[in-house]
Amino acid sequence: MAENGAPRIRLGMVGGGTGAFIGYVHRIASRLDGDYELVAGALSSNPATAQESGRNLGLAEDRIYTSYEEMAARESARPDGIQAVSIVTPNHVHFGPARTFLEAGIHVICDKPLTSTLQDARALAAIKPKNGAKFLLTHNYTGYPLVRQAREMIKSGQLGKIRVVQVEYPQDWLTVAVEKTGAKGAEWRTDPKRSGAGGAIGDIGTHAYNLARFVTGLKTDAVSADLTSFVEGRELDDNVNILLRFEGGARGMLWASQVAVGNENGLQLRVYGEKGGLEWRQDNPNYMWFTEFGKPKQLLTRGGSITGSPASSMNVRIPSGHPEGYLEAFATLYHQFAEVIRGGGNDVAPLLPSLADGVEGMEFIMASVASSKADGKWTRLSDV
Amino acid sequence: MAENGAPRIRLGMVGGGTGAFIGYVHRIASRLDGDYELVAGALSSNPATAQESGRNLGLAEDRIYTSYEEMAARESARPDGIQAVSIVTPNHVHFGPARTFLEAGIHVICDKPLTSTLQDARALAAIKPKNGAKFLLTHNYTGYPLVRQAREMIKSGQLGKIRVVQVEYPQDWLTVAVEKTGAKGAEWRTDPKRSGAGGAIGDIGTHAYNLARFVTGLKTDAVSADLTSFVEGRELDDNVNILLRFEGGARGMLWASQVAVGNENGLQLRVYGEKGGLEWRQDNPNYMWFTEFGKPKQLLTRGGSITGSPASSMNVRIPSGHPEGYLEAFATLYHQFAEVIRGGGNDVAPLLPSLADGVEGMEFIMASVASSKADGKWTRLSDV
Amino acid sequence: MAENGAPRIRLGMVGGGTGAFIGYVHRIASRLDGDYELVAGALSSNPATAQESGRNLGLAEDRIYTSYEEMAARESARPDGIQAVSIVTPNHVHFGPARTFLEAGIHVICDKPLTSTLQDARALAAIKPKNGAKFLLTHNYTGYPLVRQAREMIKSGQLGKIRVVQVEYPQDWLTVAVEKTGAKGAEWRTDPKRSGAGGAIGDIGTHAYNLARFVTGLKTDAVSADLTSFVEGRELDDNVNILLRFEGGARGMLWASQVAVGNENGLQLRVYGEKGGLEWRQDNPNYMWFTEFGKPKQLLTRGGSITGSPASSMNVRIPSGHPEGYLEAFATLYHQFAEVIRGGGNDVAPLLPSLADGVEGMEFIMASVASSKADGKWTRLSDV
Amino acid sequence: MAENGAPRIRLGMVGGGTGAFIGYVHRIASRLDGDYELVAGALSSNPATAQESGRNLGLAEDRIYTSYEEMAARESARPDGIQAVSIVTPNHVHFGPARTFLEAGIHVICDKPLTSTLQDARALAAIKPKNGAKFLLTHNYTGYPLVRQAREMIKSGQLGKIRVVQVEYPQDWLTVAVEKTGAKGAEWRTDPKRSGAGGAIGDIGTHAYNLARFVTGLKTDAVSADLTSFVEGRELDDNVNILLRFEGGARGMLWASQVAVGNENGLQLRVYGEKGGLEWRQDNPNYMWFTEFGKPKQLLTRGGSITGSPASSMNVRIPSGHPEGYLEAFATLYHQFAEVIRGGGNDVAPLLPSLADGVEGMEFIMASVASSKADGKWTRLSDV
Repeated sequence: MAENGAPRIRLGMVGGGTGAFIGYVHRIASRLDGDYELVAGALSSNPATAQESGRNLGLAEDRIYTSYEEMAARESARPDGIQAVSIVTPNHVHFGPARTFLEAGIHVICDKPLTSTLQDARALAAIKPKNGAKFLLTHNYTGYPLVRQAREMIKSGQLGKIRVVQVEYPQDWLTVAVEKTGAKGAEWRTDPKRSGAGGAIGDIGTHAYNLARFVTGLKTDAVSADLTSFVEGRELDDNVNILLRFEGGARGMLWASQVAVGNENGLQLRVYGEKGGLEWRQDNPNYMWFTEFGKPKQLLTRGGSITGSPASSMNVRIPSGHPEGYLEAFATLYHQFAEVIRGGGNDVAPLLPSLADGVEGMEFIMASVASSKADGKWTRLSDV
Repeated sequence: MAENGAPRIRLGMVGGGTGAFIGYVHRIASRLDGDYELVAGALSSNPATAQESGRNLGLAEDRIYTSYEEMAARESARPDGIQAVSIVTPNHVHFGPARTFLEAGIHVICDKPLTSTLQDARALAAIKPKNGAKFLLTHNYTGYPLVRQAREMIKSGQLGKIRVVQVEYPQDWLTVAVEKTGAKGAEWRTDPKRSGAGGAIGDIGTHAYNLARFVTGLKTDAVSADLTSFVEGRELDDNVNILLRFEGGARGMLWASQVAVGNENGLQLRVYGEKGGLEWRQDNPNYMWFTEFGKPKQLLTRGGSITGSPASSMNVRIPSGHPEGYLEAFATLYHQFAEVIRGGGNDVAPLLPSLADGVEGMEFIMASVASSKADGKWTRLSDV
Repeated sequence: MAENGAPRIRLGMVGGGTGAFIGYVHRIASRLDGDYELVAGALSSNPATAQESGRNLGLAEDRIYTSYEEMAARESARPDGIQAVSIVTPNHVHFGPARTFLEAGIHVICDKPLTSTLQDARALAAIKPKNGAKFLLTHNYTGYPLVRQAREMIKSGQLGKIRVVQVEYPQDWLTVAVEKTGAKGAEWRTDPKRSGAGGAIGDIGTHAYNLARFVTGLKTDAVSADLTSFVEGRELDDNVNILLRFEGGARGMLWASQVAVGNENGLQLRVYGEKGGLEWRQDNPNYMWFTEFGKPKQLLTRGGSITGSPASSMNVRIPSGHPEGYLEAFATLYHQFAEVIRGGGNDVAPLLPSLADGVEGMEFIMASVASSKADGKWTRLSDV
Repeated sequence: MAENGAPRIRLGMVGGGTGAFIGYVHRIASRLDGDYELVAGALSSNPATAQESGRNLGLAEDRIYTSYEEMAARESARPDGIQAVSIVTPNHVHFGPARTFLEAGIHVICDKPLTSTLQDARALAAIKPKNGAKFLLTHNYTGYPLVRQAREMIKSGQLGKIRVVQVEYPQDWLTVAVEKTGAKGAEWRTDPKRSGAGGAIGDIGTHAYNLARFVTGLKTDAVSADLTSFVEGRELDDNVNILLRFEGGARGMLWASQVAVGNENGLQLRVYGEKGGLEWRQDNPNYMWFTEFGKPKQLLTRGGSITGSPASSMNVRIPSGHPEGYLEAFATLYHQFAEVIRGGGNDVAPLLPSLADGVEGMEFIMASVASSKADGKWTRLSDV
């Protein structure tokens, strides 16, 4: 049961077989608050792997599927069929399952980016889901309590009009060509056929973009991008330098890199307005700097003294000083989506990454790729 | 199902009714890896609260109990009765339930400190559990991956012979007399009848002690303590200054405080040996400093480059740079205890806090209280 | 006397009258290692201020000047005349004094940027100084020991071929229009007539640029800039977003801001190569992160374990763990320039910022201003 | 000249010959603000070293002395004789020179600890200096602006009544027996004949003690000490664990260590009162944490927003964000002592470490040594 005594939502999973990282994360996120029970899966496109993975997870034999189409058909016909599905496949296998399950009336939780092409993204957004099935895009960093709090502080005017936005997501795991030495996660991420037109920009740049968007509420007008592939033989970008212009005049920079040696997952957001500034890093996510112009910097803590607004405190589980992390932020999206599925969650629904956010993320990717090809020409998101 | 496909262990809970912090934490920890299913509870000594809390958690009506004795009797008689129980009551209600469930052949997961008196602790350790029922004491900080790694590094000699151990656990929530203004958690923690002879020393000092003990493997010979109660009218200590002498000659200091303004849960351990030093803080637990004498400090990361030994990596869930926290460490104890319950876990069993650790923790409390009363006289743990 | 027993170099100063910040800094830097004695000054263009400032500093009456031309003429005619002069005026009063003193055979120490126009900079570089008079541009951040060490580490290949360079210099003191409320330093810095074509880019962007250049040794090919003036009525830029392309293929970003609330002088450099990464901040300048790919991050300390190469250790004054700062870095430039003046310093001369560096700094400013006016067009430094 | 135009004070030095660390530091400190000119020296007890060192520093031949007695006699007879002397010898050669110069009417600047025995310290304090010669003890950490600010904040009641004081000074340079391999600084520091009865406690423990005393204003009632010598063959303590009881009821701990691997000069002070807390570290001394109970932590910066009180701002030289360090703090003592020598400085005189502070420091050392010998017996400073 969930903490509120509600029965668990029956969940299926597409992708996430043995050895897959993000599927495992989704399963933990689904369990943490007790809102879901995994009962079915099409866990791999490889039938043997699908079977073995399903058995390892204790699924009933008749609910281990080797194709998501079959799963959608059979589960939607069962009285105890899945109510929701998690899609945790490589980018090019987001669109198909998402459409299929939405059209089958099954709620969809989908990893980011939304699809591998902008065309697919827009097509997906145009679908009319059966029975009002809902959609969640797991831009998981939006689930961090202090990210929510930052959003609220900006919305309520504590920073004044925003002027400068600096966001970055450096990693170093692709410093060498691990995609050629059997690292599965690296293989598809560096393969245009499976990832789409963007490499680092699709994998992590889009997270950074979404974070800045979510927190500031600013709409991007145009980008000027310089995408580079540093590792020999790599087709997709592994370093992303972008200038941003926002509607209303704010300016920004976005840096994403998979070759910045010494950085693991250094997602960082800094926002400066006419009255104040905010700085947050996901590798120590329980703290956030807040400065009012002319006063000392304050270190806000998750759940600490000045927290307590509804949007941020609704996802604080333990007292400040006890760290929460990536999995809790992820679980918050799952938990709040469960509330929406159950027909509630009106207060949190606007906070959950949506199909529209997914389409915008794809526009950001495509505009950046186009700008970079045009030698950095300022490119509007609305023009791609 | 658990990630390994094993069926869930049926779990009961004593304490942890609506509004209780630590019961909620235990429930999350039990769910995170999918190893347990909460099916019964005696969630409060107040019958109405017990009923309401049980319903809120979705327990079946006939498995909501108002006394733990009744729960033990009824559940052990059911074919689908609970296999394990979590005891999350104030200190003085640890002994009774723990004895009762162990004698009923039900595995026990108990919050710390073990009991409210040393006598009770020793009595509990002397019990012969029915059917070999197991016991876990939730000294949760031992579940952090880097804490495990520190232990291994020391054991394998990377620091050389240990000389100096500095451990501290400062908080500030009892800076003023919140126990007089309705804060339930503060009420029983500052009440000798419910907490026992120690205040801060029992609540957090014992965590600090256990952490140092777990990581260094050093046995404490004697303590010289100066316990103080700073807040007017408070009967139990809220600040703890202790000198430590370990067998073999190492020396240490332990500071625990509930009145150190600006500290939330600042548990910190620093260990120095003839060859190297380690420094770790729980408020940013995914990082640990390691210095080999004469070389630059290294920042080890959870799951990062030099991690990977069995004991530490077995509880790393996500890639380095993505923070894990308090709940994951707690869940690791639950998960590994589940392995033990299922008859495995031989590799991890020695890492799990035991009844013997609980007795030693009580000896530490009692020796410290005695030393403080004797104006700091060096007091051996074996003499209390 | 200097620490090496050499007699003090007789020093004059242009600018730096009562209340001026940077003149005071230059005086401390000149005294710290005992290499200079201030004996003459044209400390202000306002005669009364010049007189009062000279007296406050204890200068002899006949060596307090009200024009730098007069000072150059009279001092070069005295047998005990000044041997060197520090120019610490606003940007537009660098060129005149620098030319005059060089042509009078007096060594020049000049604040940055070199001049207020590129034309002036090139004219200055074309001068033939009398008697081989030397020139030092006080890009003071190059004097930090760890900045020197970073340069050496990169030069010696410890990072491999450089791929990514991120440099930034955020401040917040111009968040509001303090130039309109009597802050002298703000007045001339935001005035195109005195600062030249660049605001933040000339004042701090050029420091950031020089730091990246000095440490990496990379020559910039082109810039794509987006300069903004956020404060109403301000003519010059107060926020600078720039993409960088280096010869050889490395890419970078440069951010400088005077409106980033919560940043005092947050100069930071991060460099990533095929084998390793370095990260350094000037607000805690005695530490630098160094990561070899696949190994834990190391925290190098000024004068610590792996330091000790000639170029870096020559300017470490005290043991590691005792912080040195801005004034020591500044003093290192003064001290090493004294060695050059005395006819030695062959090892350090290549490390000291020169006229050529000053011209390149002006090219960077002008290329960035031009690029920004051309909507971010990639602009080569060699094309301005 | 000094910045205020005052003529330089003629300075002599006892000790500080070639290769000596602290003499070099004193010389920089004397020069930084332009208040002193070194003109005479008895730089070593070894005549050849004294001569060579004097020549290296450019002293006139007739002012290079081989005994401090001779220097005192000759210099006090010269019309241009030294007005002040810096004593930078090992501890056991503090008393003789200090007495001699005070009795010759020459102001004394003396390194800490005051002497090598408490008897000497008291004898020195009982001397009547000729012509009112002044005395400065260089507890240099008291010169840091934020240390001064902390003192003021506490004095003005911002923390409320002080409850808990935690101070520590860990180093690691004596982790192995470097005193046996030719390290001069290690030789005398580990030699009871030259250091006195205390090792780490005299060398760094006394700094930590003085810092806590200076900042909190609390008088120590008694200590309970556990001094240890971990390195084989070392006669003096290299690790110091002390419990502190202050008059008025506050409690504290003091840790000093020379064997804490990974610590360079980790002096840290944390003070907690009924209303607030302060935390400061000397290895990043331009920042200090301040927390008012129930509010977010604030990061105060040297010279930053809420600074500006007379006592702290009088020794801030450059804008916040530009780091100052150890040498500037040291120089502040020299500069303010110069003001006192010139007959002014009434506002700063009470801040300068005095003979009385030196005597108290020796009492602290002796009480701690006595307590440790008596198995940690609480020992009053007034009883030694």
